[in-house]
Amino acid sequence: MAELARVGYSALRVEDVAVLAKVNKTTVYRRWPTKSELIADAIRSVAGFDEPLPDTGTIRGDLIELVRRSLAFARKPEGRAVSRLIVVEGGTPEVDALARLLRDQKRAKNAEVITRAIARGELPHDTPADLVVDAITSPLFARAMRFNEKIDQATIIALVDLVVTGAENVGKRGSRGR
Amino acid sequence: MAELARVGYSALRVEDVAVLAKVNKTTVYRRWPTKSELIADAIRSVAGFDEPLPDTGTIRGDLIELVRRSLAFARKPEGRAVSRLIVVEGGTPEVDALARLLRDQKRAKNAEVITRAIARGELPHDTPADLVVDAITSPLFARAMRFNEKIDQATIIALVDLVVTGAENVGKRGSRGR
Repeated sequence: MAELARVGYSALRVEDVAVLAKVNKTTVYRRWPTKSELIADAIRSVAGFDEPLPDTGTIRGDLIELVRRSLAFARKPEGRAVSRLIVVEGGTPEVDALARLLRDQKRAKNAEVITRAIARGELPHDTPADLVVDAITSPLFARAMRFNEKIDQATIIALVDLVVTGAENVGKRGSRGR
Repeated sequence: MAELARVGYSALRVEDVAVLAKVNKTTVYRRWPTKSELIADAIRSVAGFDEPLPDTGTIRGDLIELVRRSLAFARKPEGRAVSRLIVVEGGTPEVDALARLLRDQKRAKNAEVITRAIARGELPHDTPADLVVDAITSPLFARAMRFNEKIDQATIIALVDLVVTGAENVGKRGSRGR
């Protein structure tokens, strides 16, 4: 991640990572046959892919905590390196494939908080988990990572409340209007 | 836009645009003192900034039509040029400032469909217009422009319905749960 932050994806050489890690480059290649696999694993390890999901007992609490963690990551040097990778080096097939893979894995993991809310009876069975997660994370990520904007807690809560209230009530025609 | 599509923002020279337009470069500089202003106006003219907003009579209809137009634009050569600008050339201060300016103007314009829905009594007075617009456009734009994915009509309708239902019901504590 230090090397990725320093030189970016295109210029990163696995040999240099091996030198920094004080191992032989064959040791690196044995575990990560390609640069793309090495970087993907590095990002997974710093971006909380293996961290347990928040479990606050409510879908609003879980989603607010998920967003808080993501934004905290975006502010760290590792997060800046990832955002630089996506913003500055997007457009090359290798980087785009990597970005899509990580997005899909992160989204599938985050969707579990929706699955658990459905199991608790908090959300309808047919809640579109990917859409709910995307409607919350995508605008905040664009603001924070693409446009370098500070996101306040009130905005996070308002967006989570907007989308979760939608998920709770969509399909219930009787509750429309005020 | 043809020149932007051909060479990108950084390599674009106002002189070459003048040659293509068969005018003297001073003629271009008189109206657009900087490259950034020239490109901003070019994007505004092809990206529907001056087009009247949809007025279907319902907030769902208006938002679905707004998204349909944006996605149709993203598929055209001019839209690809804009997406290339944002994806490939992001990270330079000049491009980022331009992207932020255009996003702010587009978002303020789109927010008018929310203002009109509030005036019609379709949405509560305190509806957060920017959040509602962002929660719908941001995920679809990321999918279409960043990840080159095809968005089907069912996905557009589901996302608009999710977020608008949220806007209709948020704050009405009595309507929570099912």
